[in-house]
Formats: sequence, C-alpha cells, structure tokens
Amino acid sequence: MPKVDLTQIPAKSGSGYPGKLSETMQGRSTQRIGASSGLTQFGANLVHLAPGAMSSLRHYHMQQDEFVMVTAGQCTLIDDHGETQLSVGECASFPASDTNGHHIVNKSDKNASFLVIGTHTEQETAYYSDLDMKVEIEGQTFSFTKKDGSPLPADLTGINTP
Amino acid sequence: MPKVDLTQIPAKSGSGYPGKLSETMQGRSTQRIGASSGLTQFGANLVHLAPGAMSSLRHYHMQQDEFVMVTAGQCTLIDDHGETQLSVGECASFPASDTNGHHIVNKSDKNASFLVIGTHTEQETAYYSDLDMKVEIEGQTFSFTKKDGSPLPADLTGINTP
Repeated sequence: MPKVDLTQIPAKSGSGYPGKLSETMQGRSTQRIGASSGLTQFGANLVHLAPGAMSSLRHYHMQQDEFVMVTAGQCTLIDDHGETQLSVGECASFPASDTNGHHIVNKSDKNASFLVIGTHTEQETAYYSDLDMKVEIEGQTFSFTKKDGSPLPADLTGINTP
Repeated sequence: MPKVDLTQIPAKSGSGYPGKLSETMQGRSTQRIGASSGLTQFGANLVHLAPGAMSSLRHYHMQQDEFVMVTAGQCTLIDDHGETQLSVGECASFPASDTNGHHIVNKSDKNASFLVIGTHTEQETAYYSDLDMKVEIEGQTFSFTKKDGSPLPADLTGINTP
C-alpha cells in the first residue's frame, strides 16, 4: 500500500549529538516516513518541534541536498543571513556544499512541524556553523570531532575522555 | 536565500507525452521548486490539479524512488489495488522498481495540489500500467516506445509515422 499511515510511524525523540549537546534537541521528535515505507534513495522525515525546540544544531552538508516544507505551525529558519519566517506550505532549499549553515527553530507558542527531504549518500560530512564541530557519516556511523579532526573538548560535550 | 519564493516559480502546463496522449494532461501544472532553487539530486515539484486532472499516466519507475505529500484539496491515488483518498498532509511512497503503477487524480470539484519528490538518476525507465508504453530517459531526452521497444502505433498517439 503506497499510502503511508502516519499514525503507525513512531515519533522518535532523542539525538545522536555527543554528551550534553544532545540536550539541546529536547522538544524535537521525528517520524521517518520514507524509511518506514521502503524508500532508500532519500530521507523523508516529518519533524515535530514543541515551542522552543530546534531541528538541529545549525549546520550545512557537503554531499547531500536538503529540502524542507512547513506542514504545521510557524517555523523560523535561521541561517547566515538572519531569521526568515516559514509558514505552512512554504519551502526552503539547501543545495549540497552551500556553506550557509541553517536550522529551523520553533519560536512560537504552538507546536510546529515540517517535512525534510535529504539525499542518502554513502559518505557525508556536515559542518556546524556555531561550534568548532563537524560530523563524518559512513553508513550508520556518526563521528563527531572538531573541524580539524581532533577530539571534541570536554567543555563542549561534558564528556571527560580518559 | 534558502527560502523559496513560490510566487516567482512559474506553473508550467503541457506534457512531454507523444501526440494526443499529451491532451490527457490538461488541467495539470507544475512548479519546479527544487530545480529553481539549486537542488540537483532530487526533484521537488509542486503539482497543481484542476478538477478532473491527473498527475500523469499511471506508471512505475525502475530506478527512482518517488514520494508525494498532498498540500491542498483532496487527491485520489489510483494504483493496482484501486483507489485511496489522500487529504492534506497525507503521504504516499513509491520505491524504485516496485511495479505497482500509480497516479494521482483530482476527482473533487476544487483545485488540489501535492508535493512530489523523485530521485534524479542518469538513466531511467518507466513503464505505463494501462498502455503498452514505456519511456527511456537519458538526461533531458525522453524516448517513448511500446514495452518491447518498437514504435508506438498511430492509434495510440494520433501520430502517423512516415
């Protein structure tokens, strides 16, 4: 059945960010629509943001095109140029390797949701605009480091490496 | 600016189907959002259907994942299993090489719209479920033939080949 039953797809909260950075993702949950319905070439996720929540740390992708459309509520897109309001039905595109870091924040007092599409690639690197951090992705493995590849410091993650 | 100004993207009507088959696409127009905003890895198109119009002839893709979300009005998904209603916010997924041919028809008396995402690939073959027709796509070139590769007959296209 091609129609997706959204009521059967769990909304997962939590984050893969290391240590205390994961706490910044409170109030965000994600339904993996595409993966739940057999798509492998791109991700199609419905992201739900409680008031005050954000989509991710502000970042940009080197390999993967990304596209969003707001489906409920009011979202604020934050990028290198400042803040832009996105209402239901409005869209934004983030071509691969465009270094304009971006994320979406719910600054309203109501829940908001958006659809996000991102290409699946074998390998990916994303850089974080407001932190000295990058992530290297290979398959399901996410490796977070400083932008020069060295370990993240404890004051960023709260993790004391031995 | 990542935000897409939908008012600046033309809604193109017409069809690449050969001969009189193109007439079946009356009432459909498409805004190429992704291509207009720098995305190259997948298509992100907003398709508008007047009452009675259809998205395409019923088909399936061999190489490309496809995903739709209804954004306005009421759509009817028609596939091998019959008809399924899709309201605003509802989605459907069509994994590459799944031979369940599909299209979306506006059977309502109001305009309807949906977002469609499709992977871009170098080469693609799509088969039409209700006709003896396929299309081979290489870059921007679309070659329509019978499923065995022979020319389409004049009674299908209205084109009398010399």
